[in-house]
Amino acid sequence: AQHIRLAVVAGDGIGTEVVEQGLLALESALHGSGTTVATTDFDLGARRWHATGETLTDTDLDAIRAHDAILLGAIGDPTVPSGVLERGLLLKLRFALDHYVNLRPSKLFPGVASPLANPGDVDFVVVREGTEGPYVGNGGAIRVGTPHEVANEVSVNTAFGVERVVRDAFARAAARPRKKLTLVHKHNVLVHAGHLWRRTVEAVNAEFPDVTVDYLHVDAATIFLVTNPSRFDVIVTDNLFGDILTDLAAAITGGIGLAASANINPDRTAPSMFEPVHGSAPDIAGQGKADPTATVLSVALLLEHLGHTDAARRVEAAVAADIAERRGAERVRSTAEVGKDLAARIAG
Amino acid sequence: AQHIRLAVVAGDGIGTEVVEQGLLALESALHGSGTTVATTDFDLGARRWHATGETLTDTDLDAIRAHDAILLGAIGDPTVPSGVLERGLLLKLRFALDHYVNLRPSKLFPGVASPLANPGDVDFVVVREGTEGPYVGNGGAIRVGTPHEVANEVSVNTAFGVERVVRDAFARAAARPRKKLTLVHKHNVLVHAGHLWRRTVEAVNAEFPDVTVDYLHVDAATIFLVTNPSRFDVIVTDNLFGDILTDLAAAITGGIGLAASANINPDRTAPSMFEPVHGSAPDIAGQGKADPTATVLSVALLLEHLGHTDAARRVEAAVAADIAERRGAERVRSTAEVGKDLAARIAG
Ligand SMILES: CC(C)[C@H](C(=O)O)[C@@H](O)C(=O)O
Ligand SMILES: CC(C)[C@H](C(=O)O)[C@@H](O)C(=O)O
Repeated sequence: AQHIRLAVVAGDGIGTEVVEQGLLALESALHGSGTTVATTDFDLGARRWHATGETLTDTDLDAIRAHDAILLGAIGDPTVPSGVLERGLLLKLRFALDHYVNLRPSKLFPGVASPLANPGDVDFVVVREGTEGPYVGNGGAIRVGTPHEVANEVSVNTAFGVERVVRDAFARAAARPRKKLTLVHKHNVLVHAGHLWRRTVEAVNAEFPDVTVDYLHVDAATIFLVTNPSRFDVIVTDNLFGDILTDLAAAITGGIGLAASANINPDRTAPSMFEPVHGSAPDIAGQGKADPTATVLSVALLLEHLGHTDAARRVEAAVAADIAERRGAERVRSTAEVGKDLAARIAG
Repeated sequence: AQHIRLAVVAGDGIGTEVVEQGLLALESALHGSGTTVATTDFDLGARRWHATGETLTDTDLDAIRAHDAILLGAIGDPTVPSGVLERGLLLKLRFALDHYVNLRPSKLFPGVASPLANPGDVDFVVVREGTEGPYVGNGGAIRVGTPHEVANEVSVNTAFGVERVVRDAFARAAARPRKKLTLVHKHNVLVHAGHLWRRTVEAVNAEFPDVTVDYLHVDAATIFLVTNPSRFDVIVTDNLFGDILTDLAAAITGGIGLAASANINPDRTAPSMFEPVHGSAPDIAGQGKADPTATVLSVALLLEHLGHTDAARRVEAAVAADIAERRGAERVRSTAEVGKDLAARIAG
């Protein structure tokens, strides 16, 4: 695209701070390329909810749809009841825009301190299903607040939904040097959902015969993530397991300050959404303490998705170089300082 | 008890190997105490299923009920379809015998190599709910094997079930020096179940005013388990989150070869069950490679549950001493050798 229409949902807490730096990086990456960016700010999140009671209206959604991509900061605020913004805004965006591939790369950049004593080379990507599983919001409760309360949560998994994300994961594995795909589930307990996932992976494997497949129960996968993360190349998993594994993956590769994500609609029937894995971090919000690197890396995923591959590589290289120099730095830089340094590096 | 009637379910794979050593430790711990043990072996698991198609009959269950406790090795075998033995035997035991407290201590023994660079002091216990949540087996699927398949899994959570395990966790926290309880859930997404857990913890806290309570989303909890495991004292969580967190907890404290567990029926309406956290490990079964320490530590939990506190302490001390001496050992001992060494130490 010669012109990118970008919807910006800065959101809550540190969201606004990191998004500002993400936009700076984006500008810098496209400078002189002939591609221009026009941003539309969407006032969504805690402020809006307090003011109007709205989380995401049909009008908002239609307006967002008219963009090429979405950059999102973080959603969630302690002053809003738990679940209201998550379900009503963040997950609503992912579901309504059919972001069925929630892509979360995990890479241990040279110079980053891992909490692991011997992390080895870590470079894998989690393909987390984004529109099904226990995230569908099909739960309910009866006799709430009484001793007879029953609260159910339903995980919904369809052949349609599982197959499309599994195929996407296979394609990504096939394009990587190691060509290895690990299905993570818990099919010995969640037998119905688990067997659907398992059969689907087996079936789609026939289309990608050069991809090696293995399987781990989610509990065992957490063990390998701390004892031998190098064993992973591409992981495909459901929405909830993916949520859990990617936070752990972020932790072993230097923390959620560095973890990027893309909520992709591969069919391009709606804009994809790029966001750091971290949350709104109310404890450090407004203090310039947040690391914008995860957002800048999410901008790289955005550029890649829109076909600006060279620009994406430049952003990643700038982050890698910046991180390498952090080691032994005397002073922790502010959010804006990191953003400025990254933008300068990206510009070259 | 002056006489312990022990049901032994060695199960599959390395189950038989580790249970043998667990029994040796039990004998050694009670030697000279006046308390005797009579074991009944139950032929349950893959062999029985292949021979008869049975997993756990009502007759088996009635016979098991007539015991004071159960020692279980491991269940699951690659020759049996996934879920058959897990659901039909292991989980059936936990559910039928109302093991609503699945207790899993995590302790980093001096001398154990953690995959973490700086683990710090790790000594917490996970109280995993054992009879509800996504483990209830209330899933189902339609149009299986067609492009229109829908596979659902239902997590069932009741005020009755949540309250009793939360109260147990509070009591455990109150009895520990730090008196700290962390609820782990995902109440911003699983709002119905999550809010039930949250409200219940708040309500029961009134009965235990000296216990400090905090909350973590399950994804964030995995981060803290690798960046700051010392922050945990008692964790209370649902069946699935507990499954995931306790494997990770085992990994950071030296591996599942050391992780013990107790499936407790606190009301003592049925025997409680003691088992290592690890599985049947078909890859190393029959080779004398399995570490029986997790089973021996599970025997300590068994002794504690039956009121033999001193014997339990001796078993734990023997394990701690054995582990401390492992450091720098030239040779990896066999299952039987570790068992023999532990039994000798327990005897004093
Ligand atoms: C905020 C929350 C709803 C969200 C999720 O669970 O998906 C977050 O944890 C994430 O991983 O993006
Ligand atoms: C074997 C399996 C059903 C079991 C579970 O998920 O509870 C195991 O992983 C465990 O943690 O005891």
